[in-house]
Amino acid sequence: MNAEVLSIGTELLLGEVIDTNTSYLAAQLPLLGINLHRVILVGDNRERLSEALHQAWKRSDIIFTSGGLGPTEDDITREVIAEFLDEELNVSPELEQELRLFFARMGREMSSHNIKQATIIPSARAIPNPRGTAPGWWIEKEKKIIVAMPGPPWEMQNMWVKEVMPRLQQKIQGDFILSRTLKTFGLSEARVNEVVSPLFVSADPELGIYAKPDGIHLRIIARAAKREVAEKIIAQHEAHLREILAKYIWGFDNDTLEGIVGELLIEKGLTLATMESFTGGLLASTLTSVLGNSSSYKGGFVASSNEAKITLGVDTQLIRQYGSISTEGAEAMAMAVCQRLGADIGVGVTGVAGPDIIEGKSPGLVYIAICGDREKWTGDWNFPPPLQLNNIATVAALFALRQRLLSIN
Amino acid sequence: MNAEVLSIGTELLLGEVIDTNTSYLAAQLPLLGINLHRVILVGDNRERLSEALHQAWKRSDIIFTSGGLGPTEDDITREVIAEFLDEELNVSPELEQELRLFFARMGREMSSHNIKQATIIPSARAIPNPRGTAPGWWIEKEKKIIVAMPGPPWEMQNMWVKEVMPRLQQKIQGDFILSRTLKTFGLSEARVNEVVSPLFVSADPELGIYAKPDGIHLRIIARAAKREVAEKIIAQHEAHLREILAKYIWGFDNDTLEGIVGELLIEKGLTLATMESFTGGLLASTLTSVLGNSSSYKGGFVASSNEAKITLGVDTQLIRQYGSISTEGAEAMAMAVCQRLGADIGVGVTGVAGPDIIEGKSPGLVYIAICGDREKWTGDWNFPPPLQLNNIATVAALFALRQRLLSIN
Repeated sequence: MNAEVLSIGTELLLGEVIDTNTSYLAAQLPLLGINLHRVILVGDNRERLSEALHQAWKRSDIIFTSGGLGPTEDDITREVIAEFLDEELNVSPELEQELRLFFARMGREMSSHNIKQATIIPSARAIPNPRGTAPGWWIEKEKKIIVAMPGPPWEMQNMWVKEVMPRLQQKIQGDFILSRTLKTFGLSEARVNEVVSPLFVSADPELGIYAKPDGIHLRIIARAAKREVAEKIIAQHEAHLREILAKYIWGFDNDTLEGIVGELLIEKGLTLATMESFTGGLLASTLTSVLGNSSSYKGGFVASSNEAKITLGVDTQLIRQYGSISTEGAEAMAMAVCQRLGADIGVGVTGVAGPDIIEGKSPGLVYIAICGDREKWTGDWNFPPPLQLNNIATVAALFALRQRLLSIN
Repeated sequence: MNAEVLSIGTELLLGEVIDTNTSYLAAQLPLLGINLHRVILVGDNRERLSEALHQAWKRSDIIFTSGGLGPTEDDITREVIAEFLDEELNVSPELEQELRLFFARMGREMSSHNIKQATIIPSARAIPNPRGTAPGWWIEKEKKIIVAMPGPPWEMQNMWVKEVMPRLQQKIQGDFILSRTLKTFGLSEARVNEVVSPLFVSADPELGIYAKPDGIHLRIIARAAKREVAEKIIAQHEAHLREILAKYIWGFDNDTLEGIVGELLIEKGLTLATMESFTGGLLASTLTSVLGNSSSYKGGFVASSNEAKITLGVDTQLIRQYGSISTEGAEAMAMAVCQRLGADIGVGVTGVAGPDIIEGKSPGLVYIAICGDREKWTGDWNFPPPLQLNNIATVAALFALRQRLLSIN
């Protein structure tokens, strides 16, 4: 099955927005055995969108659109599809009611402009969008499928996972394509490539190596007529990779480091507190994103200056002796916040964000300490400066936490 | 002048790489008065690239390609262009020498594959690429221009700035196109649309309305034969928008709320400290991203539980009386962190992230307090639940801070 994506919005052609929907869909489609042949970005322009739709219809089995479902005059996707299929666009009473309920829930008045978001054509079925006011459209006609989705990624991705992907899975009977992603931290992309490439000499299964913000990911893609065969190919290659990369692998597929750390804390009934300097709250907010509703994360301190560190419990004498950017400094931070907030485990992160050398330490140096009841652990990294240091230091801290929680060295 | 971008590479269609070249070019072209009408992403596939090139040639005055200039078999851009223009592809002795010099400088041996990067067609002039092995091509033929650039953004953007943009500036004597973006907070997209659309009845100047994570943006685009005329059109319409939206506008073009708050703090010589609950450190890390190297941001507390709030200085009695998710709670948080970290201004942010009702308060309720030496300010919001609440609450806090720092009500 061949597919084409039409990404719609003048903002994309003015460079105001990076089109992340396309790369999201592009990564999803191979898992359904759908080949993405082309992506077209067009503005909010009737004529050009219509031309793109005509061409896509001729070439492809499935057309995905994203964008142009909003309430403003600019939003023309519905009109263009209706005109292209020569169908009439009418307000659906059910959709209108849902829309009114949505606004009522938000305690806001519905603008008259929004009514167009309740319109639909006879051959389309509405796709629910609990995250926004624009329902999607699912159209099947003349053996082709058109799926119209909203532009905001937060809405589109939810609609994809909950509604569109399951419907497509039912429709498609092609080769089984399975993928498995292994996520590692602590090795460079070149090093991973060197180590694993001898295992993937043929093109099947395919191996992709990607440098991501949370480490190097390896993606195995296997194709086979039967699901069990594809599963077996994946399992064999995954076992090989695990042998070679064991201690660097922290997760699979949709795992996140914060998700894993959160689960381990809850599972072991442990509480955590953090004190960070140059990461400035990124560690705290990453942990809160998964632990916000639990009592496992007690809270955190953000203290970039020595003055603030001292106020928050780090010993003046210790800073004078070792400097605040040191193994000892990180340890003192971890212990201070652990005591003050009454947590089982404390994490301290300090380092030099750059561009200047501080306390004789170069940009990229990061010290992390993890203190528990019975043990302390410290580590330091030297990350190359062009990396986004607050992000990589947060990842390093979460990785270290995972290792400690699993009692792995 | 109408342009089209062909972004070439199978990795783009597999979602392995986000196509940032396109958004880069898209943002650059309006400044040259070039209208980008369409972007096409195609894989490393001869037939489909050729089809895209045919269509683009018919529709557009200028075609920009990025990608497919590498040394491997997959890299087919040169071959496809040569075939399309019916010209012969030959090794250029000058380009070969430059390529050999490039490898010599890197101390690496040149692979025989690389020789294809020294090939060219008669109607093309090579565009130097000091950052890589693939020179670009500049082609003028039958009143059309084709500019072929390498895919790696680091190479492409350098080539654009140093070589392509200056040549285009010489070529083009078109309209001046200027743009101006006004950034607002506090109104919905539909409401902004309702209020401003009567001012933009004609297509010139163009008005775009975009819902962004930091509020609703309005972009005015004016076209005119002379720069001064375009400037005047922008100024007139900006003045109108400022009249209508005055108190909601917080910035322009590349402004960020955290940048504005940071500048105001430094300008006024004031220091800041924050205490946040469900935003979990996002306010702190946003402020650190601009104030990390200054002493204006003293630091912050992240405290989601009442227990942690009390430990950090919020009065038990107050929580018992008003609940921690309240105007009084936010105020107590702001004052506590302000005192403990010795800052001039304290900010407290509390609210209900959902999905559950807490202390009788519904998800989406946010309380923000800003306390200074002489005055206190508090505000509350009720954001619709589908929004990413920690983000919108952080934006609301920064917006409130800006207003207070400017002494605007």
